Formats: sequence, structure tokens, C-alpha cells
Amino acid sequence: MEEKKEMVIPRDDFVFIPLGGATGIGMNFFAYGYQGKWLLVDCGVGFPGDGLPGVDVLLPNPVFLADKKQDIVGLVITHAHEDHIGAIPHLWRDLQCPIYATPFAAELIESKLNESGLLGRADLNVVERGSELELPPFDIEFISMCHSIPEPNALAIKTPKGTVVHTGDWKLNQDPILGQETDVETLKNLGKRGVLALVCDSTNVFGEPTTATESDVQKTLTDLIGQYPDKQIAVTCFASNVARVKGIYQAAKANGRDVCLMGRSLWRMDAAARATGYFHDIPEFLSEREAMERPVGTVLYICTGSQGESRSALASLSTITPIRNSVYFGPDDVVIFSSRIIPGNEKAIALLQRKLKAKGCKIITDREEMVHVSGHYAGQDLQQIYQLLMPKIALPVHGESLELNEHARLAKKWGTPYAFALEDGEVLNLSETPEILGQVETGILAVDGKQILRLDSEVIRKRRKMMDDGSFVVTLVVDRTGTVLGEPQISTFGLLDTDNEQKAELIQRIKDQIAQLEPGDIDFNNRIDQAVRTVIRKFLDEFYGKHPLIDVHLVRV
Amino acid sequence: MEEKKEMVIPRDDFVFIPLGGATGIGMNFFAYGYQGKWLLVDCGVGFPGDGLPGVDVLLPNPVFLADKKQDIVGLVITHAHEDHIGAIPHLWRDLQCPIYATPFAAELIESKLNESGLLGRADLNVVERGSELELPPFDIEFISMCHSIPEPNALAIKTPKGTVVHTGDWKLNQDPILGQETDVETLKNLGKRGVLALVCDSTNVFGEPTTATESDVQKTLTDLIGQYPDKQIAVTCFASNVARVKGIYQAAKANGRDVCLMGRSLWRMDAAARATGYFHDIPEFLSEREAMERPVGTVLYICTGSQGESRSALASLSTITPIRNSVYFGPDDVVIFSSRIIPGNEKAIALLQRKLKAKGCKIITDREEMVHVSGHYAGQDLQQIYQLLMPKIALPVHGESLELNEHARLAKKWGTPYAFALEDGEVLNLSETPEILGQVETGILAVDGKQILRLDSEVIRKRRKMMDDGSFVVTLVVDRTGTVLGEPQISTFGLLDTDNEQKAELIQRIKDQIAQLEPGDIDFNNRIDQAVRTVIRKFLDEFYGKHPLIDVHLVRV
Repeated sequence: MEEKKEMVIPRDDFVFIPLGGATGIGMNFFAYGYQGKWLLVDCGVGFPGDGLPGVDVLLPNPVFLADKKQDIVGLVITHAHEDHIGAIPHLWRDLQCPIYATPFAAELIESKLNESGLLGRADLNVVERGSELELPPFDIEFISMCHSIPEPNALAIKTPKGTVVHTGDWKLNQDPILGQETDVETLKNLGKRGVLALVCDSTNVFGEPTTATESDVQKTLTDLIGQYPDKQIAVTCFASNVARVKGIYQAAKANGRDVCLMGRSLWRMDAAARATGYFHDIPEFLSEREAMERPVGTVLYICTGSQGESRSALASLSTITPIRNSVYFGPDDVVIFSSRIIPGNEKAIALLQRKLKAKGCKIITDREEMVHVSGHYAGQDLQQIYQLLMPKIALPVHGESLELNEHARLAKKWGTPYAFALEDGEVLNLSETPEILGQVETGILAVDGKQILRLDSEVIRKRRKMMDDGSFVVTLVVDRTGTVLGEPQISTFGLLDTDNEQKAELIQRIKDQIAQLEPGDIDFNNRIDQAVRTVIRKFLDEFYGKHPLIDVHLVRV
Repeated sequence: MEEKKEMVIPRDDFVFIPLGGATGIGMNFFAYGYQGKWLLVDCGVGFPGDGLPGVDVLLPNPVFLADKKQDIVGLVITHAHEDHIGAIPHLWRDLQCPIYATPFAAELIESKLNESGLLGRADLNVVERGSELELPPFDIEFISMCHSIPEPNALAIKTPKGTVVHTGDWKLNQDPILGQETDVETLKNLGKRGVLALVCDSTNVFGEPTTATESDVQKTLTDLIGQYPDKQIAVTCFASNVARVKGIYQAAKANGRDVCLMGRSLWRMDAAARATGYFHDIPEFLSEREAMERPVGTVLYICTGSQGESRSALASLSTITPIRNSVYFGPDDVVIFSSRIIPGNEKAIALLQRKLKAKGCKIITDREEMVHVSGHYAGQDLQQIYQLLMPKIALPVHGESLELNEHARLAKKWGTPYAFALEDGEVLNLSETPEILGQVETGILAVDGKQILRLDSEVIRKRRKMMDDGSFVVTLVVDRTGTVLGEPQISTFGLLDTDNEQKAELIQRIKDQIAQLEPGDIDFNNRIDQAVRTVIRKFLDEFYGKHPLIDVHLVRV
């Protein structure tokens, strides 16, 4: 990894900089530069793990763009998943550029901007699928792909220096459910005309060579629903997977069941899907109240809660005691998890499943039946896209470094002359002789209450330290002679009980230590501070085995 | 749940009190009382989740026994897993009673006592398997069971009031690898003579009705190892599963490979197993250095690291760069996970597996092949033990409340007249008409550095609060007129940057607020404190959306 340094980006080079999304999963945020202008692709959030308590969501740090606002020609969105659009309301003030998205993503971005009070101010533009967009010096062609959300697009970004294909998240296998297919023809033609670079999703580089399709899932669900004609059945899935919701609807319909949606995010996605025409052939879904009036066996419930979320619709179905005016699931009712486990959610999901089992419900997951497929490519697809596009440069993104390196290795194996597993901030010269020109400043921001903090800030670092060891603040009033007056005040949050009997000993040790110092010189306050810290540190290690954050408030009178 | 209250336990009742191990997994610690005497069974630790940073390990709170030390006749150990013996060194000073264990557990307890400097002081007694122990007024019979560690014992605890069978962790299916079998005959005879109560493991109540055996695992491993004659092969498993280690050894031997142990806990268990005769027919395992001198294909490595531990032997095999004088695994070498995933370790395991895959290693887990079986019973076994023992009372332990309730439901379904899913501290009268007599004090202790804290203590509560919101301590020097002198000193660990520009505004607000107070009365200090807290709380909510712990150090001059 290179040293970060101020670098000048040559105006006539066509450059690619991952500002987020290359070093780790999430926070997709990519910049293309040419002739002093900047094109941005995606602007997504990341999710903090257990190591970042109090942090709601992570953002890519846009500091590199701070002095370039007037030169940003636009932010183009590949698709509407949170890791591709979620940071827009947080970072819009730092970008203030037009946003371009296809209808479904635009619908969801609009509702985000609305919630943040930015609706009138942000310039949001709807682009039709398969169309071209001119944002000089860039020409952008939207290419339809398949993924686990409507309207995933790859972008062909064209400049006189060459064409980059930026895939977004994708798979090749066709999705007849929404009638959206990967536009292989356009990809093939691009390949024939010559592709300089492929910036490509790395999610499934370690995955199986082939996978099943949404149609396979629909078929399995149709069979499964047919096996329990007299039972209540709930299917849980990701709300944004509109094709899955439609597939479940069709599986229900084939078994004479109407569909009831349960959970706010499903209804929100339903609204977006209807606004953009995806459910034009599906009658309105039943509300929970309507469903409860129907005979058992005539309704299928689609629920939020596949990740074990404690306030989801499925969680409400898992309660032992019936909730008034709510659907109740009991012995032999069936719950199908048409979803994968997102890492970190294992315990929550296991708890929810055990609660349902304890009530006698039957649980079906993708371990037992083909009730879920990934939205990302299988291994064969990846090889095929390289064969179609024949890029000169492979630029794996959207994965941990292990995935990026494996992806780069495969690309080279398949004949790609150059492959770079870039880190966030690295500037690559997109040319026939590509090279890393240097590194610009990037990083991760944490949305922490109403603050946005750098992840490497002292605040976050200290909070992590306090998690393990607590904090210790002492206020000492010391007179001119170096005598401690009165009783020192101590705050020991998360470290020891304040009425601890050993406190008296600590205070005595502090007084003794100060008494040994020679009072009077300019540096006396500093010497007191250092001496007291040392006493406290040693004492807490000796008696408690703890190494907290320490502050000394010295009051000189 | 009943209110906790001081209760008198009737001297002539035979009572059972789970002091740990009933409310949640881990910390097994059970008390049997009769005629003023107390018999303790097991004394284990629990493991804190991500919600308890800084805490090493959890212990059951022995406060109920504080005034009963002289009446404890002994602590009897069922088996040597950490959740059954791990708390002994931490709590021995609170118990100071003789400890009874079969040879393998005694070996491990001895080494624990040794590390804690208690070896000469604790009275540790070795009991042979299948023998009887008189600790009046209790007679204790050790009954051999099967589990994933050598020498698991059920205990038949006999008093004139009746016999309790306390299973410990168990399964019925026979384990020919160590030659240890569940003593079904003794269980049957106990059943014939009449069992008052069964205190029984609930781990797998939601599991499958039947499971495979250690022999099946050994067979699969033998086949698998045979499929990769020219490759390096590592198998990772739980170190304490001595039968598994022996099974892997036999599978290796059948394929002409010698076995090398890698990892300290495996060598520690090897020492205990050899000291107690379990490896008498196995030559010394190879050290890593010895193994490296052998040709590829003639060694099998058994490694620690099945849970993705970052300092384990398997982690060292996952490094990309070879480590000097260490075994190196590369493309097409094979790593077999002969283990399950302990909840909470999913991410660490997935990362380790991806690292190995990235190097081209082949990974085999229990998802693909029968390379692991649970140490706990399958559903049929549970039903069978109820048929053998025909207890009057079922007392499920060792599970979350969902498991305990399901276990109680099953026990009743199988004809057990009474079943209680007790919580920790509930006192059950073991009689023909069992009832909960009341509740005694129990709880969870956290080993936090060198301190032992109550889990519900303010220290732990505050640390959890600080994880999300940080802390804020301000020192104010206020004179007799209520004027703030000098610059207030502020410590804001994990909350905001100390050189924050808004700090000036906060300090002004604090000064303004104090200026509005009427100085002078006795309560002035309190009023300043409250007013300042309110200003800070409001300010931090308004500007940062944060609600930290706040302390005010007031210095009056």
C-alpha cells in the first residue's frame, strides 16, 4: 500500500478511483475522472459490526471531492440496494450534483431525499433502461443486467480514451419473472468494439460454477405450498427482491391462495414496484386484517424478518401468546425462509426459528429446499462476461481483499492482460499501459447519532477502548505549595463501583505522589498530570487488571 | 417468576436448586439440599457475547451458599467441559468443600487449580467410573454415559426421600472408539427401583430423532483421507473431543499416515488423555518439526482452530506467506472441519475458510460430508431415557427457556406426571407432590480483569451505556457568588472531539445557567449539579443525538 500524499491527477488521463467499495463490502462509491471532470457511480452505505456500538451506518468519506464540486458531472446509480444508494441523503451536501437513476431506483431515492428534506434541492433525473446519457466528457450507456432487485444496470462509460464497463451487482441467468433479462447482445457488441476496462462485482468468486434460477425457486415454492393445503403458510424474503415477491405470489396463486403482505418494508417496496409498473398484473395484496377474515388455506403471508429482526412481521408470528387482531401461527403451520443468512445475523435468525419451532411450526430453509438463489453470478457467468467483453484491464470491486485478489487471479487466467485489486483511494490510469498513479484521501465515516465521525477518529477509538476498560476522570484541587485540598472527585464509568473501599488507598497514593514533586516551575501542572496518571494506571492494573482511559482535571488555587 | 425473598428451606425436604445452568446455556451449578446438608453438582463458566466487552468469562453467583460452607458435603463433577468445571478456581474460595471427579476430569481440574495456586489447598478426590460415593445424607452413584469428552457421568443421587438421576450432558449411542458405553443396564435398574426425578440436558430437544455416531464420522474421514493420497490434509476439531482425535488417528493410520498435533489445547488434552490411559494404544503424536521432515502424503495434521480462532494452528496454516519452520498449506491441500459452528463464531470461521480457499485449499465441512456428530442426544434417545427411568418429575436444564419448555412438554407427553422448567434460584421440593417452594438469590458474575462483578452491577451497566453513547465529565470551579472561574475542564471519551468548536457554546450555556441560580443555600451545590447536567444533556441531544453518562465535578472556592 502506498503512502497517502497530495497528488495531482493528470488532466488528460482517464482515471478510475474507488472512493469506497474496494476495501471491503458496502459503501460503493466510485469516481471516474477525465479532462478535469468527474463522474460518480453509486453512493452507498455500509453496516457496522458489533465492534462499533452506537454507530448506525457507515459512509464513504467524500473528502477527495471537496474542492471538485463544480466539476462533478453527475452521480449515476446502478441499482437501488442500500449499499449503492443509501449514502445519498447523508453525502448530497458534499456532492450537490445531478443524480441519474432508472425508474425503480429513482422512486426509492426520491423517498429517501424526501425523508431528509432534500427533495426540492437535489436534482434527481430518471433515465430509462437501455438508454444513453451524455455527461461530457463521458457518454454513459445503461445496460440491463439481472440481480435480486428490479432494474440492475451495468454502465458502459465511454470516453475518447476508451470504454469502461462498470457492472454493478449482477448475474447472467435470465429472470423471466419480472421479464428483465441481461442484455447479452449489447455486452457482446461492446466487447467486439473493444472494452478498455471491466469494473466488476466480486461477491461470488468463491461460489459454485452454476446456480439455480428464480424460476427454480418459484417451482419449489409452488410444490411446497401444495404440500400443506390446510395449514397457514408464511414466506419471508428480502423486501427489495421484487421478483421473489412476484414469484411467491405466483406460487401462491397456483395453489389457490391470495397473498397478504406483512411488514413495512415490504409495503414500501410494493409501492415502488407498483409506481414503476412491476406489479401491473398483480391485484392489490391483502392487508393483515383482510387476510384474517379468509378461511385457513386460502392465504399466503409474505413477511419481513428473514434476518431475525426483532420488530419484523415474522417476529410477531413467533410470539407464544396470540396478539389481538393479529395473525397467529401455531402447531404445524409452515414458515419458509426464502432468503440467505447475512453474516452477523446468525444468532437472531436461530432464535426466531427456535421460537417458531417451539410453537410447533415447521421451518423450511435453503438448507432443506431450493427456496433461495443468490442475486450474484455463479462462476460460469463470471468467466462468460470476460469472454463477452474481453477487457484489457480487470478491476475487481465489491468484495473483501480475498475476493478481489481471487477475482484478479481468475481474470488473468482467462487472458485479461492487466488486473488490479485496488484499494480505496488508489488512482488507476485507464490506458493501454495502466498503472497506479498514486493515492487520494478516502476513508470511512460513521453516522453516530447526529454526528458524522471519521472511523479512525479519536472519539471512535476511545469508545472502543472504553468498551473493554472503562474510563477514569479525577479532579484535583492543588494549592501553590503542591498540597491537594479537599477530597478529589472521581468518575469511574464502567470501571469500578464509585463507593469502592480501595478508592481511599488510591487517593492517598495520589496525594503522596504529588507531595514528592517539587512545586513551582512552569512545568509543575504537567508534572502533576503525568505523575497522577502514572499512579492511577499502576493502581488500576495492580488491583483490577484494567487499563482505562484516564483524564486528570487539575484545578490550581 | 416469583419475587426474590429470604426463604427458609425446610430441613426435612429434599430440594433441588439450579444455582446456574437453568436460565440459559453454560454456568452449570446445581445444589441438592437435605437435612441441612448441601450437595453441589458441577461448577462451570459461561461465555459472554459481544454485548459484554472486556468481560473474560461468566460465573454463577454462589451467594446462596455464603452462610452454608460448613454444610456443603461436596462438589461432584459430571464431566470436564468448561461449562461444568471452569468456575472451580474462581469460586473455590466461596465453597471450600471437597471436589469429586472421575480421573480425566480430575486431571484437568488439577491443572486448573495448579494455575490458580490452589493445588495444595483444594481437596480434590478421584472417583472411579461406575463407583458409589457416600456423602451423607446423600449416596451418589456414578453412571457412565456418552458425550463428546471422555468419562461423562450421570449421577444417581439417593436419599431416603427418593432417587434423582442427574444426567449431565449425554447421548445414548455407543462410542466404541474409547470403549466407553452408556450404562443402559444401570439406568434400567434404577428405573425399576423407582426414580423420583430426572434432571436432564435439554440441548437437542429440537434436534433430529436420530443421529450418526463417532464410528460413522471415522468411516467418512477414512474415505475422505483416502481420496487425496498426494495432498497435505488437516483436520480441525474440538481439543477435548478425545474420541474424535482417536478416530481421526485411526482414519489416518488406515491410510498410512502418521498424525501430527498442532495447537496448545490439543497437546494439553493429549497429556490428560495419556495420563488417564485413553491413548495407551496410540504412539506419541508427531511435533510440527518432525512432521515437516516426512514426505507429503504420509502425515495428517490435527489442528486447533475449528472456531476460527485467530491464534490457532489452523489460522497459521491459512497465511498466504509461508512462516519459517512451519507447515505450509497451498493449492489443492485439504482442510476438514470435523466440528460444528458455535453460535457467535460464524464470521471468524467464514473468514478463515475464505483465506484457505483463496490459497486454493479444499474445504470440507459437515455441510458436505458426515465429518461431525453432536455430543448430545438425538430425539429418540431422550424418549428412551424417559422410558428407562420413568421419573415422577422431569427437571429440564442446560438450555434456553425455549428448550426447557419444549423438554417439559415432551416429558409430560411421554407420561411424566410432573415437569418443571425451573429458573435459576427456584427451589423445588423433590417429593411425590413436588412444588416450587420459593426462590433464593442467584445471578451471574463477570470476570472483568482481576475483578469479579455482578452482571447487573452499575459498572457493567455503565460500560454498556458508554459503548453506545460515550461519557462526559466536566469540572467547574464556582465561587461564593455563583460565578464560574476560569475555563471548565471537560473529558468526553468516545463522544466528541475535545477541540470541538461547539464546546465554547456549551460552556457559555453552562455559565448562563449557573448565573441564573440563586446562590447561597445549603442545596446550592446540588442545584448547580442538576442544572449543569440538564444543560449538557439537552445540548448533546440537540447537536449530537447522543445521551452519554454525565458527571459534574464541582469545586467550590
